[in-house]
Parts: sequence; C-alpha cells; structure tokens
Amino acid sequence: MSARPIDFYFEFASPYGYLASVRIGRLAANYGREVAWHPIMLGAAFKLTGAKPLLHIPLKGPYVIHDITRMARLWQVPFTMPPLDTLPINSLAASRATVWLDQHDPTGAIALAKAIYHAHWGEGRHLGTVEAVADVAADQGIDRQLLSEAVADPLIKVALKYRTEEAIKRGVFGSPFIFVDDEPFWGADRLEQVDLWLQHGGW
Amino acid sequence: MSARPIDFYFEFASPYGYLASVRIGRLAANYGREVAWHPIMLGAAFKLTGAKPLLHIPLKGPYVIHDITRMARLWQVPFTMPPLDTLPINSLAASRATVWLDQHDPTGAIALAKAIYHAHWGEGRHLGTVEAVADVAADQGIDRQLLSEAVADPLIKVALKYRTEEAIKRGVFGSPFIFVDDEPFWGADRLEQVDLWLQHGGW
Repeated sequence: MSARPIDFYFEFASPYGYLASVRIGRLAANYGREVAWHPIMLGAAFKLTGAKPLLHIPLKGPYVIHDITRMARLWQVPFTMPPLDTLPINSLAASRATVWLDQHDPTGAIALAKAIYHAHWGEGRHLGTVEAVADVAADQGIDRQLLSEAVADPLIKVALKYRTEEAIKRGVFGSPFIFVDDEPFWGADRLEQVDLWLQHGGW
Repeated sequence: MSARPIDFYFEFASPYGYLASVRIGRLAANYGREVAWHPIMLGAAFKLTGAKPLLHIPLKGPYVIHDITRMARLWQVPFTMPPLDTLPINSLAASRATVWLDQHDPTGAIALAKAIYHAHWGEGRHLGTVEAVADVAADQGIDRQLLSEAVADPLIKVALKYRTEEAIKRGVFGSPFIFVDDEPFWGADRLEQVDLWLQHGGW
C-alpha cells in the first residue's frame, strides 16, 4: 500500500503559495510521496475569518512585500513583484483552467499551475484574465479555444466551488495550506516542519 | 565598537511571542549580541491593521492552537494552553511592570518578562491582573507594593504608550517582531532567518 499524496491547497493570488509551490514537489518526492494540487478561491475562506488581502493592509502589507522578496532571494526562487495596484488578481480563470485540465490530464494540470504561478510571481505578469491564462497555457501546448470554453463551463465553475468548500470544511483558511495525511500546516514557512513530519512521522 | 542589541518587540498576550522569548537570548548571544526587550500593547497596532485577536477567529483560531502546541513540543518549550475564555489577557499590568523595572534594573526586567511569559503560557496561569503579575514578581524578589504603585503611575502609563507608538512608527504590527539592526522579522517562525541574517550579515 502506497502512502497518501500530500495535499497542497493554494490560491494563485498568494505569493507565499507560489514560494511553497516551487519546493513542495521535491520535498514530497524525497519521502516517496506524490502531491495533490488543489487550487482554491481563498476569498470564500476570508469571508469566514474576516481576513483581508495581505498586500494592502497598513503596516503589514509593506512588511510582507519585503518578507516575500527576501524569502525568494534566500530560497533562490525567481520573484518579480507585480504592480501593486493590480493585486490581488482575480484567480477564477487560472483556478478553473487548472481544475478543468486536472479532469483529463492531472500531470498537465500541475505543470499548468506551476507555469501560471511562475508567470505571475516569478515574472510579475498580470494573470487575472482568461486571455492571460490562455497565453501561459498555449505555451504548454493547451488549446486556447478549449481552455476559454472550459473556464466558462458551468460544470467547471461548480467543480472549483465544490473543491473550495471541501477545503474550508477541512479547515483551510490560508495559502499555502498543506496536509500530511491529516496533519495541517499553514504557510510557506512551515515547509521545514512538513519535512520533519514526513521524516519522523510526527513528534 | 560593539554591535547594536537585537530589538525584540513582544506582547504578553501573544503565544508566538512567548515561544520566541525562550530562544531569542541564546540565539543573539551566539553572535555576541545583547537583546533589548520591548513589551508593547499590540491592540494599538491592530487598530491600524484591522487584525483581531488570533485565537477566537473561526478556522484560524483552532489551527493556531494546534500549531503553537506542536511548535512548543518540537522546540521542547513548556506550554500549557490557558482557558480559552480568559484569552487574550489584558497585558497592561504585565507590560507596565516590565517597563517600570527596566528603568532601574534592566536585567531584572528581562527576568521578570520571562517569568510572566512562563507563568502565562508555560503554566497556563491567568496573568491579566496586577495581583497575578505581582505574584510572579514577588518570586523574583520584587516588592508587591512598589510594583502595584508603579503600574498605576501616570509616568509609567505614558512610557508604555510612547514605546508602543515608537514601535508602530518603526513598522511593528505583530508579536514577536524582531529587528537585527534595521532588518525586520515578524513571527517566531522567522527565528531561523534571524539566525542566518546574523551569521551572514544578510543575503
């Protein structure tokens, strides 16, 4: 019996989600684990917690921009801050595209998620529109027309909504949010604890 | 010329502040640095950021309790969750007592801060009253009567208010908040980066 995949919940608009996305695959592979990638719409959780988008909060926003930039440098992860007045992006198109692709090409969906994250936070591009997502997807060999139709498909809309609701039921309120079996870890800064947990099976 | 002390801003009601308080002294000493301990009233910063006390937030509160407990276990730091309905404590008496003692006995003030933190988060005691703070202080050889008077002294009230305002001007919005020279780090989970920063002088 093989071990369960590690559940990786993320919001495309979340820079810490991006940072974690660059490392989670190798981290899991070191322990023979797969990663299940779950894009979610964090706004739904924010309605419950009262949280606001991070980057525009007085005092906290400027610190977080400094912190992400510094962490990306430390981890040697490409990082370009997108123009602040375009953030947070509406990640509906990016998330729906990933959910759609996952239904018939799970490996391709992970590659697409990584490419979207890289374009947005690695290169600082605006990824809040269907066109921008289709541009990134086209580079992955995904048909623009099919993707545009999928993003507007009521069944895909419902699938993303359902996945987000299931995540919240499980306790997810931020991005990244990781479960090792049923143990929850919130934040890119918990990856080291995720590593220790996988290594020792808890403590 | 000796290096500047590391500035350690903390709120007694903050469990992550407690966790960091247990480690900051040795961490700094490893690099020949002193620590300047700054108790602050975080509520003043929360008014600016819109943040709410952590432990009662839906979804986030239960996770945070799990996270603190797990981190204390990992770090082998004594931890006892105080009754949730008594949290967060009003830390005015604890903070004022520390500010007062710092004016004539800085070393004693650090010892008092550690003892208050330990009583509240290590042993789960309620530390929200002058009497409770005086109990802890008495164990440190501090006169109860003098402490009670100091906590009510308008000059001490103003001193704490001033220190909190200065912290906010510097960008402090959470606990713990640490400056290595002028480099800001927020959160107990940034201690490893504080260590790296001290080691390499930045990156």
